[in-house]
Amino acid sequence: MTAAELAALLNATLHGDGTRPAVRPCHPREARAADDIAVAMDPDLLPLLADCRARVAVVAADAVDRVPEGAVDAVLAVGRPRLAMAGLTAAFAGPPPVGPGIHPTAVIEDGAVLGADVAVGPFAVIAAGAEIGEGTVIGAHVTIGAGVRIGPRGLLHAGVRIGSGCTIGSDVILHHNASLAADGFSFVTPEKGSVESAKESGRVEATNTGLVRIHSLAAVTLGDHVEIGANACLDRGTLSDTRVGDHTKIDDLVLIGHNVQVGSHCMICGQVGIAGSAVIGDRVVLAGRVGVADHVTIGDDAVVAAGSGVGNSLKGRAVYYGTPAVERERAFEAYMLTGRLKGLFRDVKALKADMKALRRDGGPSHG
Amino acid sequence: MTAAELAALLNATLHGDGTRPAVRPCHPREARAADDIAVAMDPDLLPLLADCRARVAVVAADAVDRVPEGAVDAVLAVGRPRLAMAGLTAAFAGPPPVGPGIHPTAVIEDGAVLGADVAVGPFAVIAAGAEIGEGTVIGAHVTIGAGVRIGPRGLLHAGVRIGSGCTIGSDVILHHNASLAADGFSFVTPEKGSVESAKESGRVEATNTGLVRIHSLAAVTLGDHVEIGANACLDRGTLSDTRVGDHTKIDDLVLIGHNVQVGSHCMICGQVGIAGSAVIGDRVVLAGRVGVADHVTIGDDAVVAAGSGVGNSLKGRAVYYGTPAVERERAFEAYMLTGRLKGLFRDVKALKADMKALRRDGGPSHG
Amino acid sequence: MTAAELAALLNATLHGDGTRPAVRPCHPREARAADDIAVAMDPDLLPLLADCRARVAVVAADAVDRVPEGAVDAVLAVGRPRLAMAGLTAAFAGPPPVGPGIHPTAVIEDGAVLGADVAVGPFAVIAAGAEIGEGTVIGAHVTIGAGVRIGPRGLLHAGVRIGSGCTIGSDVILHHNASLAADGFSFVTPEKGSVESAKESGRVEATNTGLVRIHSLAAVTLGDHVEIGANACLDRGTLSDTRVGDHTKIDDLVLIGHNVQVGSHCMICGQVGIAGSAVIGDRVVLAGRVGVADHVTIGDDAVVAAGSGVGNSLKGRAVYYGTPAVERERAFEAYMLTGRLKGLFRDVKALKADMKALRRDGGPSHG
Repeated sequence: MTAAELAALLNATLHGDGTRPAVRPCHPREARAADDIAVAMDPDLLPLLADCRARVAVVAADAVDRVPEGAVDAVLAVGRPRLAMAGLTAAFAGPPPVGPGIHPTAVIEDGAVLGADVAVGPFAVIAAGAEIGEGTVIGAHVTIGAGVRIGPRGLLHAGVRIGSGCTIGSDVILHHNASLAADGFSFVTPEKGSVESAKESGRVEATNTGLVRIHSLAAVTLGDHVEIGANACLDRGTLSDTRVGDHTKIDDLVLIGHNVQVGSHCMICGQVGIAGSAVIGDRVVLAGRVGVADHVTIGDDAVVAAGSGVGNSLKGRAVYYGTPAVERERAFEAYMLTGRLKGLFRDVKALKADMKALRRDGGPSHG
Repeated sequence: MTAAELAALLNATLHGDGTRPAVRPCHPREARAADDIAVAMDPDLLPLLADCRARVAVVAADAVDRVPEGAVDAVLAVGRPRLAMAGLTAAFAGPPPVGPGIHPTAVIEDGAVLGADVAVGPFAVIAAGAEIGEGTVIGAHVTIGAGVRIGPRGLLHAGVRIGSGCTIGSDVILHHNASLAADGFSFVTPEKGSVESAKESGRVEATNTGLVRIHSLAAVTLGDHVEIGANACLDRGTLSDTRVGDHTKIDDLVLIGHNVQVGSHCMICGQVGIAGSAVIGDRVVLAGRVGVADHVTIGDDAVVAAGSGVGNSLKGRAVYYGTPAVERERAFEAYMLTGRLKGLFRDVKALKADMKALRRDGGPSHG
Repeated sequence: MTAAELAALLNATLHGDGTRPAVRPCHPREARAADDIAVAMDPDLLPLLADCRARVAVVAADAVDRVPEGAVDAVLAVGRPRLAMAGLTAAFAGPPPVGPGIHPTAVIEDGAVLGADVAVGPFAVIAAGAEIGEGTVIGAHVTIGAGVRIGPRGLLHAGVRIGSGCTIGSDVILHHNASLAADGFSFVTPEKGSVESAKESGRVEATNTGLVRIHSLAAVTLGDHVEIGANACLDRGTLSDTRVGDHTKIDDLVLIGHNVQVGSHCMICGQVGIAGSAVIGDRVVLAGRVGVADHVTIGDDAVVAAGSGVGNSLKGRAVYYGTPAVERERAFEAYMLTGRLKGLFRDVKALKADMKALRRDGGPSHG
């Protein structure tokens, strides 16, 4: 690719020599060759260009005049750096983890149906009745259960486990060791148990004399363009599938409990946990490590800050913080007031002394 | 199965035509055929029966008179809905993830002993000296280390890893990619390190000049009827096995550290972490994302609310909240008082103004 | 080994018969034979020696006079018990999980280079261009991507996934199902999205109309003597590798986001999550379940207490608590003050009554 071609791809303004080759995007400090592309969209990196082997640089449009004089031969100025990063990295993304074709060691049971150009890596297992869409790539050591349907252009990395009966849309990416359709965590005691007692009275007045298993008869349904992170777990539904809507992205080590419904275009960040039967709207953002209680509803476009614990349903289009999660203003007010407690204790101590003095001699102690 | 047979199975009272076929339990909205079983034990779902293809419904006994007139041909009324759900889902649970027999690709080392009717899926590895009890199902891609003993009727889903030397009871279920007997996380510095210094003085007066590994010589022991969730990790003990008692259920992504002892009939919910050498009693419930510090003890029948951090030992038969976890009443009082802080600041401000006025002119400012 | 040899190994003072055989370290309660080694470095365990089959014991030097008279034939007294435990467990550590040689079922692609004495377990996959150092052990079901370089004397347990292009030092231990080089979780909306809006104004004034993927072009680099826990996830960098320095130990279920830089000799405990582009210094200790926000820096020798949430950069050589994490003194002060709130409310109530009385009749209510 040339600098001019890359500029066109990124909707960037080109300054300088558009004929320069542009072969490998890298941090300015890690450029090794003239045809590297120094990515310096963070203005703090601009000084590094002065002593950089790359002859092409990508910078933020509003900082283009800070590129050191003569540092590179071609400058690509972009208006929205992170969006440019998306385009840039897409253009140079590497090949899938397994090559084309069906590896001879893979086990594909009778009755599994593979679309055109499906690639299957070593030791993958595809059970009877599974249907894999055109162009989907199944990595090494992947397990696909009976009757699973996967759309076209999917990418399943090594060690992904998909239990029987799941339905997965097109263009889905599943990372290392992600688990779809393990059984839900659902038990009941024959008589009232300790948790029911705690919810009713706040006390433990009953004991869990036996835990009886509620089996999970349903599976997991993922929409199109969904991405699921490494070692994440999405459990089966009890009677209806646990569902994730189109374009929703789920990070590593996230737990989505049984029966949960997640809308479309959500971002569910690392280590989030959503307990059984919760309902998450569209375009919801749950930052890292957020916990959501069972049966809770979160409205569209809600943003929940990292580490928050959502114990009750939340309306959409607002920002929430803390445990229990409350609207940002309320959380910040509580935080501010707590930070001023030391002064409050001091004030009350002084007031008590004043009052004592008043009581003793009819006047304030230091009036 | 007929409606009458299902009623007998669930200890339900049958209203209507007991001869109706009852083949597939489902959400009332997802019924597709007359022999589906509409599960409407949540009274909110009862109106859906009016326009539902299923001819058999399961409802809560105290809401049976709210079933729409003529909506179905047979109504099964149950007294404890979640318990009925356990029976219902058990009756219709699907087959195990791998069929009977030993898959020809499985590697079973010399000296491994398999009981009658053990099923082993593709690419499973069973090392020398392992003993697998009668009827246990070993899924695809499972790794079982040397000398591991597993009781009868177990179910190991795809990707489960069991390190050497573990002892596993009967009727155990291990979900996708669960890890048993990875090494404990245990290190020591030759001289006093930063954590020891922090514990002693609250300050960092020493530096971690070298981390020396404490190896894990023991393994993991699970009792009977234990269930372990997907991607959960139970680490080896140092000298004695990490142990989990009979009937204890552990959810996805839970971490049980080295030497931990968990009692029987516990429920350890999603993403809980229990640090090394903690001791958890019987019938303890740790809700989602609870953290437990190392060497802490939690008494029988304790219930710890979601997201709490247990830093010190807790007595049994009580409900705990917060970080550090304290008894419910204390936690709620602190929460209530914090919520009233704004008013307190206002009151103190007014008192200060009054006092100032008193000091100035011998009387309250607005008296 | 004899008691005398073990004493030399542990730098212990030997009391008694150094010729006694010392074959298996164990908890005093679990000793089965005379040549077992009863490990009673916790003084609480000393009374158990009175009725213990082992004839050799390891105890803390400052408690050696509390060993029951005649309980064992040889006592090894150690000055720093946990350090002795490291030596003791190293001396008796078991064999690696797979035997020597390349298992015939392993897939080693053309162009992969294996050093001398590399062991490869059943169904492992080593892609083209990978280089494995001398003596490294690759467990069953491990996946190693194209071009991965691993140093000598490594140990990769079953189910480890290493994406293409990673660089791994010498003497590294990776536990069950650990994931290296899944893609980073990085997305951008074409126009300003809800999170950007929330950061700017605290409100949701924009909606996530499309999530565009930022691909991860780089990989993960681990230094020498690094250990990574079971089911932990270290994601790829965007342009530069995510890095972990020499001798750093990472526990189970930890998430290290894209571009993160972790220094050397750190201890990153169970279920910690570090968001993208954070920088962690040397010898930092993050206790269990700590969360670290993206782009934050933590200084050398910092110790962050369990469950804390690090939202802003922290200086080194200090102890931090809470969410947001603050220095220990400040956190404890806030905790103490909050615990005294009930009394403060009572005081203010009394002051108000006094003030009211003053206003009514010119004197305090109970003066």
